[in-house]
Amino acid sequence: MNMYNIILKKREGKALTKEEIDFFIGGYTKGDIPDYQVSALLMAIYFQKMNHEETYNLTNAMKYSGEVIDLSPINGVKVDKHSTGGVGDKTTLIAAPIAAACGVPIAKMSGRGLGFTGGTIDKLESIAGFRTALSKDDFIDNVNKIGLSIISQTEELATADKKLYALRDVTATVENISLISSSIMSKKLALGSDAIVLDVKCGSGAFMKNFQDAYDLAKVMVDIGKADGKKTIALITNMDQPLGRAVGNSLEVIEALDTLKNQGPDDITQLALVLSGYMIYAGGKSATPHGGRDMALNALESGRALEKFKELIEVQGGDSKIIDDYSLFPQSSYIKEVYALSEGYINSIDTELIGMASLNVGAGRKRKEDAIDLSSGIVLNKKAGDYVEKGSQIATVYGSIKNIVDEVAKQLEKAFNIENSFKEPSKLILSVID
Amino acid sequence: MNMYNIILKKREGKALTKEEIDFFIGGYTKGDIPDYQVSALLMAIYFQKMNHEETYNLTNAMKYSGEVIDLSPINGVKVDKHSTGGVGDKTTLIAAPIAAACGVPIAKMSGRGLGFTGGTIDKLESIAGFRTALSKDDFIDNVNKIGLSIISQTEELATADKKLYALRDVTATVENISLISSSIMSKKLALGSDAIVLDVKCGSGAFMKNFQDAYDLAKVMVDIGKADGKKTIALITNMDQPLGRAVGNSLEVIEALDTLKNQGPDDITQLALVLSGYMIYAGGKSATPHGGRDMALNALESGRALEKFKELIEVQGGDSKIIDDYSLFPQSSYIKEVYALSEGYINSIDTELIGMASLNVGAGRKRKEDAIDLSSGIVLNKKAGDYVEKGSQIATVYGSIKNIVDEVAKQLEKAFNIENSFKEPSKLILSVID
Repeated sequence: MNMYNIILKKREGKALTKEEIDFFIGGYTKGDIPDYQVSALLMAIYFQKMNHEETYNLTNAMKYSGEVIDLSPINGVKVDKHSTGGVGDKTTLIAAPIAAACGVPIAKMSGRGLGFTGGTIDKLESIAGFRTALSKDDFIDNVNKIGLSIISQTEELATADKKLYALRDVTATVENISLISSSIMSKKLALGSDAIVLDVKCGSGAFMKNFQDAYDLAKVMVDIGKADGKKTIALITNMDQPLGRAVGNSLEVIEALDTLKNQGPDDITQLALVLSGYMIYAGGKSATPHGGRDMALNALESGRALEKFKELIEVQGGDSKIIDDYSLFPQSSYIKEVYALSEGYINSIDTELIGMASLNVGAGRKRKEDAIDLSSGIVLNKKAGDYVEKGSQIATVYGSIKNIVDEVAKQLEKAFNIENSFKEPSKLILSVID
Repeated sequence: MNMYNIILKKREGKALTKEEIDFFIGGYTKGDIPDYQVSALLMAIYFQKMNHEETYNLTNAMKYSGEVIDLSPINGVKVDKHSTGGVGDKTTLIAAPIAAACGVPIAKMSGRGLGFTGGTIDKLESIAGFRTALSKDDFIDNVNKIGLSIISQTEELATADKKLYALRDVTATVENISLISSSIMSKKLALGSDAIVLDVKCGSGAFMKNFQDAYDLAKVMVDIGKADGKKTIALITNMDQPLGRAVGNSLEVIEALDTLKNQGPDDITQLALVLSGYMIYAGGKSATPHGGRDMALNALESGRALEKFKELIEVQGGDSKIIDDYSLFPQSSYIKEVYALSEGYINSIDTELIGMASLNVGAGRKRKEDAIDLSSGIVLNKKAGDYVEKGSQIATVYGSIKNIVDEVAKQLEKAFNIENSFKEPSKLILSVID
């Protein structure tokens, strides 16, 4: 077996065997197979695609290329949750404590990630003292104690994926369902939970722009999870406008806390309830997803979910006074309002522009080694479907460098498409695949 | 401009601009663009192809990535000849002296090459004393003096092609018309002749197995040559069986000498006459290719072509006594006959097997750094269309290691397909493109 023949076989449109995929991933992980052969194979995969069996075998090879977490010391059906990423997506911070409050053990490892804002781990670090780098023993102990822990995922997870992703990123070979799904699912499978609820974002602000692409990706990921013996459910949800109002790290934690206090924006509240409902159902705590959502609503309205988040902060070393005193969050030096340029209905929002604006004020990372400005970001005062007067405030920019904040505020004026006639905003949950 | 966007553009099936191609070839030659991005682009080119303009721009960028030879100190229309490679192809050794004898200046630089046998340069080095590494001044002086010189091509020729070819070879991206033709033509254009006659081999023993592929390649190469202002003609010729009878280095020089003495096999004689006829025509020494062939026949029959070859040997330091005394060539220690396994007509010959046999007895290079055994090779005593008795000699193996010679002889028994009914061998010249 050699890499040349594997490239040739895929170039000719033939399916690779498990042994060939193991050879490729094993050799690449060890450094025996050079980048230039792998990038040629990736481009051949882009054109010739992989079938379900190949995609599963690729995922599995990548899973075992690094550390595989053993969560068996935790009792009960452990449920993981993953979002493919969208602007303003702080759902984990709300859905995880809700599901945990309903008795579903959540042992969650998250990444930092590149993009418009930091990942869940970055966001949690805006809470003073919150430790995201726990030992595996402490992580497991915490889940056994309070039913919830969220820590930074190990560097050794799915080693091949790290190398492959870096290579795909510079060789224009990202956009392939098999490569995307194996990248996500290899990490999910290595993280060791028993069930997985996937939130596949779809729309102008997401990687998957149209429903069919999002559906195909979701279907492949669900199939991979099931083939691995895990209960796997995917929701396809709307990302035509930012989720909630806050985009940024501490800004999103504040919005998550508001939501856990029953004072959050409607869209993020509804999405968190549906997602945590599916997590409760996947964890076997309710007979139906609908029953799960009822339990979630009860946990939210009773304050038990907020209480669970408080426990999480305390058990991981954070200062829980922050829940009632947002001034304890990092604060921006410059705040600038954005005003509507005309009167009418906001019929669409350029979600990518909002994301880029967030990145530009320092809320995200352009490169892996970049530091994040945890206090910075964007708050939308108006959203799609809202009526605005000319000159009324539609957004607020938070940052630490005045010039950049001013410039971003100027750009944001164009992110809101204001028209005379009202257009119904698209619905939030587009489909469920299980 | 950056390489990522160039890969993405080609992946999406769009045509690259001259500037993008120059950026890619320039950056790769300098080492600024890494192999892994280039191999991804090559695979994208494999799938999305390049149009004529892109192919010409690629060829030109590669031409100027290394040294460009100036042949202007040589008077007259300099004509180059190139074969895409076949088993037993020693045509240059015959056609070049014929054309030179007819007044066409031939300033030929050749490669050593990998493959079943050595290249023209390796073959010439089986003549004791023959120097293939002349200075450019001596090279040009020799052409001005006797009308012919054949030397080893500079290492600095089409630098990008060397890097690209090595990369294509290990990433399964060789088989693309634009990449193949730009690789060949960038070197031809850099070599500075005014006209080029291409011999595109087609058949089971050639890289291009079927006529349509050979035609497409020939057409693209002719278009590139013309776009560069050079008279360019391509012949598509048959490679369903080895050319002539000898496959190996000194064995092929001996056959070339026999042919120049009017005692060569019919196929190689006819091909050399037609090719040199086109070279004479391209060099403006005859009004038609047919007229060129008549001149070629006259040069051959009169002995002027053999005399020109003798001058070539002498002016480049070789011992011309070898022309009349073949015992001065390197001699093999082991010679083994191959006999027919059955009676009947030879209806086809496994040309690739003959080539591999030649490589295995040491006549070719498996890797660039391999040494060649100049005396070794295969002689076919029978060819397609011949009738053989069971046990009659059909081939002879020459080599220096007894075990290998015996083994290769055994393999060769299967290279001849002997059947009861006679099948007309396919014709030699399939098409001409000009």
